[in-house]
Amino acid sequence: MRQVHDRLAIETRGQGLTEITGPLQAWLGGQKVSNGLLTLYLRHTSASLLIQENADPDVQRDLEAFLAKLVPEDPALYRHTAEGPDDMPAHIKAALTQTHLGIPLQDGRLALGTWQGVYLFEHRHAAHRREIALHLIGA
Amino acid sequence: MRQVHDRLAIETRGQGLTEITGPLQAWLGGQKVSNGLLTLYLRHTSASLLIQENADPDVQRDLEAFLAKLVPEDPALYRHTAEGPDDMPAHIKAALTQTHLGIPLQDGRLALGTWQGVYLFEHRHAAHRREIALHLIGA
Amino acid sequence: MRQVHDRLAIETRGQGLTEITGPLQAWLGGQKVSNGLLTLYLRHTSASLLIQENADPDVQRDLEAFLAKLVPEDPALYRHTAEGPDDMPAHIKAALTQTHLGIPLQDGRLALGTWQGVYLFEHRHAAHRREIALHLIGA
Repeated sequence: MRQVHDRLAIETRGQGLTEITGPLQAWLGGQKVSNGLLTLYLRHTSASLLIQENADPDVQRDLEAFLAKLVPEDPALYRHTAEGPDDMPAHIKAALTQTHLGIPLQDGRLALGTWQGVYLFEHRHAAHRREIALHLIGA
Repeated sequence: MRQVHDRLAIETRGQGLTEITGPLQAWLGGQKVSNGLLTLYLRHTSASLLIQENADPDVQRDLEAFLAKLVPEDPALYRHTAEGPDDMPAHIKAALTQTHLGIPLQDGRLALGTWQGVYLFEHRHAAHRREIALHLIGA
Repeated sequence: MRQVHDRLAIETRGQGLTEITGPLQAWLGGQKVSNGLLTLYLRHTSASLLIQENADPDVQRDLEAFLAKLVPEDPALYRHTAEGPDDMPAHIKAALTQTHLGIPLQDGRLALGTWQGVYLFEHRHAAHRREIALHLIGA
């Protein structure tokens, strides 16, 4: 049994989903573990991690539109407004989605379903550099 | 330290919660690991995993009703409508709940609280065969 | 490779967030594992676990206010009312946040970002004693 720790930096282009399945598979290809558990932990509270459909891009747009309506970027609704009108909604959206994901790794492949992709979900309007702590344990 | 990979198939009967605590405990009984960590990873994006109360069935009905109202099955609200009026709401409900769960296993029993059950939450109206990737690590 | 199982009891003071980063770090300091994966599993369905910003207390108040408005404590909305008007909303809030968290541990420190804290989120009005099952695996 072995374990590996690493950090993966992702540049987002502002609000929306960035697929990271490719970078994750590339990273896994360089490890000496082909069966085990991969944990992704996002070191931020105004973005999140998400498993979503990777086929129709409209799914991502609908999800973003739903959350934009559910958590309006209206400063009148929040006390925490010093970091901009999109910051408190970003924290709430992060609380409603995921800060960490655990995905089994089998024979060198993540156990993703046919239509699943792994996404970093940026909730701020500005582009950000986001850091994911990776932990892999297995053999 | 050992690890086990497997797949658990669950037949849902359409929208709603299906308890899977029993099948999980049965599966665990056949493994040579009694202390460790069980990870469940659902290989779909229109259903999800959930820990919920297993005592009063009204809790499940209230949760379903709340989500039905929060995420209406109204095609006018979404771009992604080709797979039916319940598909995009299913993706959103999945994003708001969980695709994976990690539960400690101690002395052969999951660390569930007295009133907790593990559920597969089907968000589509039609019955589906859903697949959960299982990963168990421990001793 | 080693693993540790334990239980952490947290006394909440009623509805709201209780930071548990300190107790977790203290617990970790007593273990003979400095690199690995920590899993927190909450043994209740009317409270939850959350990673949130630990800088501005207004973030926590805004998050609580958002959820209070999203999931009203109005018995007319729910069937499950026997345990009080705050019980069913508590189950729903728990379903929308997290029952478990997985956080990598590196060189004896959790991989938390600069502004992140680990919180127990109490959804009931009364103070409760909540129990978290801890699992640590690593070296």
